Amino acid sequence: MARRARRVRSTKVEQAPFRQVINPYEPFEVLSEEQLELIHNSSLTILEDIGIEIQDAEARGYFKRAGFDVDEQTGRVRLDRDGLLELISKAPSTFELHGRDPGKVMKGGKGHMLFAAVAGPPFAGDLDQGRRAGCYDDTVKFIKLVQKLNILHVQGGPSVEPTDLPPLTRHLDVSLACARYLDKPWKPNFIGRDRARDAVEFAKILHNKDADGLAENPVYYCNTNTNTPLILDGEIAQGVIELAKVGQVICITPFTLAGAMTPASISGALTLQNAETLAGCAFVQAIRAGCPYVYGSFTSAVDMRSGSPVFGSPEFAKGAAATGQLARRYNLPWRSSNGCTSCVPDAQAAYESQMSLWSAVTAQVSIIYQGAGWLEGGLVGSFEKLILDAEMLQMLASWMDPINVSEEEIGLDAIREVGPGGHFFGTQHTMERYENAFYRPLVSDWSNFENWRDAGAKDAAQRANEMWKRLLTEYEAPPLDPAIDEELEAFVNKRKEDYARVD
Amino acid sequence: MARRARRVRSTKVEQAPFRQVINPYEPFEVLSEEQLELIHNSSLTILEDIGIEIQDAEARGYFKRAGFDVDEQTGRVRLDRDGLLELISKAPSTFELHGRDPGKVMKGGKGHMLFAAVAGPPFAGDLDQGRRAGCYDDTVKFIKLVQKLNILHVQGGPSVEPTDLPPLTRHLDVSLACARYLDKPWKPNFIGRDRARDAVEFAKILHNKDADGLAENPVYYCNTNTNTPLILDGEIAQGVIELAKVGQVICITPFTLAGAMTPASISGALTLQNAETLAGCAFVQAIRAGCPYVYGSFTSAVDMRSGSPVFGSPEFAKGAAATGQLARRYNLPWRSSNGCTSCVPDAQAAYESQMSLWSAVTAQVSIIYQGAGWLEGGLVGSFEKLILDAEMLQMLASWMDPINVSEEEIGLDAIREVGPGGHFFGTQHTMERYENAFYRPLVSDWSNFENWRDAGAKDAAQRANEMWKRLLTEYEAPPLDPAIDEELEAFVNKRKEDYARVD
Repeated sequence: MARRARRVRSTKVEQAPFRQVINPYEPFEVLSEEQLELIHNSSLTILEDIGIEIQDAEARGYFKRAGFDVDEQTGRVRLDRDGLLELISKAPSTFELHGRDPGKVMKGGKGHMLFAAVAGPPFAGDLDQGRRAGCYDDTVKFIKLVQKLNILHVQGGPSVEPTDLPPLTRHLDVSLACARYLDKPWKPNFIGRDRARDAVEFAKILHNKDADGLAENPVYYCNTNTNTPLILDGEIAQGVIELAKVGQVICITPFTLAGAMTPASISGALTLQNAETLAGCAFVQAIRAGCPYVYGSFTSAVDMRSGSPVFGSPEFAKGAAATGQLARRYNLPWRSSNGCTSCVPDAQAAYESQMSLWSAVTAQVSIIYQGAGWLEGGLVGSFEKLILDAEMLQMLASWMDPINVSEEEIGLDAIREVGPGGHFFGTQHTMERYENAFYRPLVSDWSNFENWRDAGAKDAAQRANEMWKRLLTEYEAPPLDPAIDEELEAFVNKRKEDYARVD
Repeated sequence: MARRARRVRSTKVEQAPFRQVINPYEPFEVLSEEQLELIHNSSLTILEDIGIEIQDAEARGYFKRAGFDVDEQTGRVRLDRDGLLELISKAPSTFELHGRDPGKVMKGGKGHMLFAAVAGPPFAGDLDQGRRAGCYDDTVKFIKLVQKLNILHVQGGPSVEPTDLPPLTRHLDVSLACARYLDKPWKPNFIGRDRARDAVEFAKILHNKDADGLAENPVYYCNTNTNTPLILDGEIAQGVIELAKVGQVICITPFTLAGAMTPASISGALTLQNAETLAGCAFVQAIRAGCPYVYGSFTSAVDMRSGSPVFGSPEFAKGAAATGQLARRYNLPWRSSNGCTSCVPDAQAAYESQMSLWSAVTAQVSIIYQGAGWLEGGLVGSFEKLILDAEMLQMLASWMDPINVSEEEIGLDAIREVGPGGHFFGTQHTMERYENAFYRPLVSDWSNFENWRDAGAKDAAQRANEMWKRLLTEYEAPPLDPAIDEELEAFVNKRKEDYARVD
């Protein structure tokens, strides 16, 4: 099979190679055509009648010039459906993300999918130190681990927020860490015009490209949120403008938790999600027609007894599959997440993550953002969960390698040779295949009880704890031209001085 | 929504009601039509050219009378494809299983599915006592828990083997325990003619029915195995004859572990699986045309480094989806499993189980046998895993409740009322729905970190440990007519005397 590449044998942690993941199966669907159309029409009615509040004048200017009805007093923008759909049709159906390693170019959309690590939880967690406020040391460790884990294509920005660094300038430190320790693309901090422009300037230096060059080969996955219901925050809008101008991959994700920010129904949440992310898509296309846009989705529900958000639930899973259908209706790539609610990397964390992952992958997601390392509803970046998620993603990638069905592979001759009651351990057919026939796990233990017990009777979280430490000892930074490194550092220092003056 | 019934509020463990589970979505498929036909044709070639060894003369008689080529010297039976397909076409496309509670009648096939507990591991496991040889006390506890867990429709026989009871008569003790502590159907021990006849006689007394009555309303799910490659054991064949004669639901599952009992390829394993279970179906139809038959599947692979079987892997998941396609090709209901390889109820156990469950459920499985409580490749019946699996099954059942999409449910008026920037906690739309809008967990903890920590910082396995004990304290035996109870006990005692004489 062409796509199941040979794994490299070494004494290092054994894992499948870095590669493009493709889902070859038909997308799994949960909505009928009529249901899809009702959500579509209802969301267009919302944008036409109620509109969306855009909390930035420059952003409203783009809507105005695109011919939409803008109320400067209230910030309300109303989008007629024809104008909306025409703008949306300018967005491409797939996108590419380029790491600084020219071999790390991945495609999203039309069955191609990318896996991105968790982005920005305020807390870090591991079995040794427990849960604590994230610090720069955690940020760097996480980035190194994402670099090491072949199944991850995109780093989620800091993954653990470096809360020990000044808020105004920590985005610069994170960018420098990503540039030095990663050769994969990442999600920049682009909240507000200044940070967004820093991200653009930083990318120009790192990739030695001008604005057009960046637009040709996008390097950033720019994920952000609406404030559901129906608000696009001013600083977020400014950031989108800066990154869309240089053609980076933009994803505006409505924060649609049913029962809180939307009606207490999945169809209500999906309707608001559809309205808001389509408004976002129109906004991005008005800034730069043809800019890659990823339909954003995070629809879940709150626990109606506590009001807390819940991830990895049946509602989340249904919402993901329905989102795939909506995104395909507009010919857009789409994003889902690997959410879970559990506070620890236990069985609950795993089955919740699997609910999220299976529903996204079978529905042919384009990018799983928050795809590895997420714990406790996204409040914790967990080192053990990162490893467990990498295993789950690697298993799903293997599951997407189609079954090889051929006369040779079926092995009728071997079956004749063995006959009733024999076994196939020693046949030629087995000998030719045994090394790469089946999936090999990353952190799963397939030993029998006695061997497992004698090796310390460790559960999966304990083995994951050992593995992330081992990966860090194996870590080697991908080479970076010293001149570029110097220029990046000078840029960061200069910008820190600028911020100090403003402060 | 009609099928999402209201849950009963009480101080008891909160769970969704006992109900028929239906998958309303299109089945997920992993094989092309051509691939399906190649597996179909190859397996028919195997049955025609190589044949299958039937190690019982009476069983061979059925094949002979059905017109197949039988070699009495070697026990080899060769099945021509026309004769085979004609016999298979007599099997119904759905089946029913009747518990002794007349309200507990469940259907399998054509989107209807049943969930059955683990069947017969030699070891029991829980967090208190660890892993040990199963005993009758464990058997009874497991049966009581399966009775209590609404999401489970069928008991897997003993679930934990009572290894402290004499092997020759323990099936009688298990039957009596199932009759007394369950009102759901179960899987009988029917290995060998004597045990199989005991099972039939027992059912006649319990259900107050003759053979025809049992055939009209089948009460047993009779799961058994071939000895792959291409052997049907004599005692197993005898058991199948006795239960098929009285029209019980039969499932013959090939033991197709790729790389050991089949060629080292999933397509090779599926081909042998198809050959063997279709031979089993033909056998059952030759015994009693129209007898419900469930296409059996257990295809997985061995770890090619250790030779140990692996469950819950990508290969297992692909095999399950492909099996759904094969079974539908013959218009047969089919069985899959909730397998996992992990030795403990940890994250690995959960993600492996989810691989098994999602692949089976999306492929529209008819019955998930070994569906709850399975650990360590099926060697351990785990009390904590039983609870965790019940949660996963309950979540998947909820996921199969289709999204309600209507103008009322979307709540456009509520969206208008709230407008940009508000929230939906207090709207009329939310008030009308909040109690039953979303899934409620069984053992998952959705508390925030502080509440979770203050409640003891328990992981899912620890909470499951508390829950199974709580369910046992809540347990009440379903009423059983004392006269029937007496008659069952007398039957069991008489049969024990018979066996003692033979011994």
